[in-house]
Amino acid sequence: MSSSPVKVGLLGLGVVGGGTWKVLARNAQEIARRAGRNIEIVAVAVRDVPKARQMVGEDVLVTRDAFEVVRHPDIDIVVELIGGDTLAHDLVMEAIQQGKHVVTANKALLAKHGNEVFAAAHAKGVMVAFEAAVAGGIPIIKAIREGLSANRIQWLAGIINGTTNYILSEMRMKGLSFAEALADAQRLGYAEADPTFDIEGVDAAHKLTLLASLAFGIPVQFDKAYTEGISNLASEDIDHAERLGYRIKLLGITRRRETGIELRVHPALVPMERLLANVEGAMNAVQVYGDAVGGTLYYGQGAGELPTASAVVADLVDVTRLLAADPEHRVPHLAFQPDAMDDIPILPMSEVLSSYYLRLRVEDRPGVLADLARILADCEISIGSMFQEPHSVNDADIIFLSHQAREGAVDLAMEKIRTLPFVKSEVTRLRVENLL
Amino acid sequence: MSSSPVKVGLLGLGVVGGGTWKVLARNAQEIARRAGRNIEIVAVAVRDVPKARQMVGEDVLVTRDAFEVVRHPDIDIVVELIGGDTLAHDLVMEAIQQGKHVVTANKALLAKHGNEVFAAAHAKGVMVAFEAAVAGGIPIIKAIREGLSANRIQWLAGIINGTTNYILSEMRMKGLSFAEALADAQRLGYAEADPTFDIEGVDAAHKLTLLASLAFGIPVQFDKAYTEGISNLASEDIDHAERLGYRIKLLGITRRRETGIELRVHPALVPMERLLANVEGAMNAVQVYGDAVGGTLYYGQGAGELPTASAVVADLVDVTRLLAADPEHRVPHLAFQPDAMDDIPILPMSEVLSSYYLRLRVEDRPGVLADLARILADCEISIGSMFQEPHSVNDADIIFLSHQAREGAVDLAMEKIRTLPFVKSEVTRLRVENLL
Repeated sequence: MSSSPVKVGLLGLGVVGGGTWKVLARNAQEIARRAGRNIEIVAVAVRDVPKARQMVGEDVLVTRDAFEVVRHPDIDIVVELIGGDTLAHDLVMEAIQQGKHVVTANKALLAKHGNEVFAAAHAKGVMVAFEAAVAGGIPIIKAIREGLSANRIQWLAGIINGTTNYILSEMRMKGLSFAEALADAQRLGYAEADPTFDIEGVDAAHKLTLLASLAFGIPVQFDKAYTEGISNLASEDIDHAERLGYRIKLLGITRRRETGIELRVHPALVPMERLLANVEGAMNAVQVYGDAVGGTLYYGQGAGELPTASAVVADLVDVTRLLAADPEHRVPHLAFQPDAMDDIPILPMSEVLSSYYLRLRVEDRPGVLADLARILADCEISIGSMFQEPHSVNDADIIFLSHQAREGAVDLAMEKIRTLPFVKSEVTRLRVENLL
Repeated sequence: MSSSPVKVGLLGLGVVGGGTWKVLARNAQEIARRAGRNIEIVAVAVRDVPKARQMVGEDVLVTRDAFEVVRHPDIDIVVELIGGDTLAHDLVMEAIQQGKHVVTANKALLAKHGNEVFAAAHAKGVMVAFEAAVAGGIPIIKAIREGLSANRIQWLAGIINGTTNYILSEMRMKGLSFAEALADAQRLGYAEADPTFDIEGVDAAHKLTLLASLAFGIPVQFDKAYTEGISNLASEDIDHAERLGYRIKLLGITRRRETGIELRVHPALVPMERLLANVEGAMNAVQVYGDAVGGTLYYGQGAGELPTASAVVADLVDVTRLLAADPEHRVPHLAFQPDAMDDIPILPMSEVLSSYYLRLRVEDRPGVLADLARILADCEISIGSMFQEPHSVNDADIIFLSHQAREGAVDLAMEKIRTLPFVKSEVTRLRVENLL
């Protein structure tokens, strides 16, 4: 051990903050054997001082004033684990202004204010590390930013929200409705009391926004992400998908097209034989396709005390190693040099290309299929397969699986289909992602 | 772009060398946008100069003398893609002595001579990067060495030889014998004319040796790795395994026990529901279990021109970034600081803990099962399940699945079972790895 310890200030001692404290304490020796220096938490900012004091002992500064930690002259690295994008924003910006390096797990902050945060960090020559912000303990940011640096990345698709994946696994395996599975998830602590951010896809869109920037060298553009959650997903579509050889997953997908970047979160049918289709429960996985490496996949726990702390502490080790390095030789925050970012636009959803699953109820009489097929053909949507099953004496359910089509064309076809006199339900539209 | 290009000398322009040339050329702009500098191959050493000249053009030094490249004063980084551990050894050592950084895909060299190579590199303050040596384009070395640096790693298990995984997939899916599947693999270019290194597990053991050093901070100890290939694997065991809910995979496994490190390559039964059991064809995957992160998995193409080049070029980008860095702040070659390596021993195979699949043919008469069960119990091997099926009028096949046992105890039990008068075959022993 050649140098003095690196001194860390921790903002927040909740689940991930507590996990970070535990991992650094428990694996102190192992970590120092790797990093070549000890990493010490010397200050924590918390709401409940006596409770924190119990955990961290007498030798650590414990304060309710997070700015005291951020401005503390002895501290080299600030770990922000408060969450949200108001106070956390001010703290991170102030830490940067104070010349501190920052480690954060805050995807909401970076998805919304990343451009501002990274520009400020670049100007001050400090690092903002955020491995813990996406897919918990899986080192996916490192993989994309460094491991695949030789590649022109074509697309990535990920299960990056454990709550929704848990709910979808429960719906499929136990035949539950969305509401039942959500209630179970809440009871078991997999979903929060207000689950909106998770189930409506917002959390996944935060993470996807960051991954897209890393993959393509584009600014952070959360406001342009398409976000559709799973709260309207019917269990019958999970069953239909299963019979057709697919699993339904909430995917974050970003893909490079000639005219722009697709950036979208929504439930999708994935062929059962893909590894991604077999990621169950609260697990996360991200598939990344690079032009040289082909398809790669990264799998692990996407949340939780110790897995997330694993990523926070790995960032601390990385930052510790690079403290003395010339800033221009560090890995750029968003993988690409700030002066080499791409201004390729995010595509509107109508320009996205996907395959589609369309389900609707119709009167069971001659000519129905011909009329539907004509509309789809007029909209340049090519049908790969069609399934029909009787619902009652007079009605039948029809499912179409399309080849690749433009989403705008599908919107148009759905509008036309809605007006047909024999159509007796809304058209349920899900996207099909073959991940090849 | 602030600085002048980094200059690279390439030893070998075969499959991976050609791929490296192609990736650097094709993605030059993308790579420079990330690295902040251009990376240029300025010299190549090859056997066939005119052929190489066609590929690289007139501006690159092409020579038959690899030492000319290694000693060239303009060259910053030497990429060794010759393979083998004789000439490649001398070239890598000379490059280090010349103060050049080295990128290599040579697992045989590093598994056998890694301690010497890394010590020399450490003494000279140069980097030896080897992401391409294990699992092709999957950034597994980076994941273990940096991404999981917060963890005390407990074990890892990998499918790290594509040839054998391809053969095993073919045997299972097409019901082929080992010899038939090998012939197919050779015809399609998945196996070499002399396939010994692959099918006997030597290549996997080279890679596993490196992974174990990275995971546990131990010196490279290929000579202590247990290596068992798939050439004796009977297709009937693949069928039996399938019916019992398992797939047979050639795994490289290394695991920390209280008394030492397990380091072993052999075919193993893996529960069908594990992702690793569903890695088919020539694909690779490595599962790594850390105390904080839990289980993680990394999947992709483990060989081939462009996937391996993806890893070589990623290493070039990493080395380029760290050229100017103080050597003591770089990531250590084997993840842990050289003065903090562990001398925990590699366990002999008799001390390994695993579950077991034992198959044998016996005379079908009363008392047989009781005698077998008694021997297993006397050796402290606990049976989880037993299956018997008639083979002929007089004979039956018996399969035992054991709970976890010491391999030495199983050796002893097998010796005793061999001497029983009613036993009519050798005892087939396979290990069962639950990967939990």
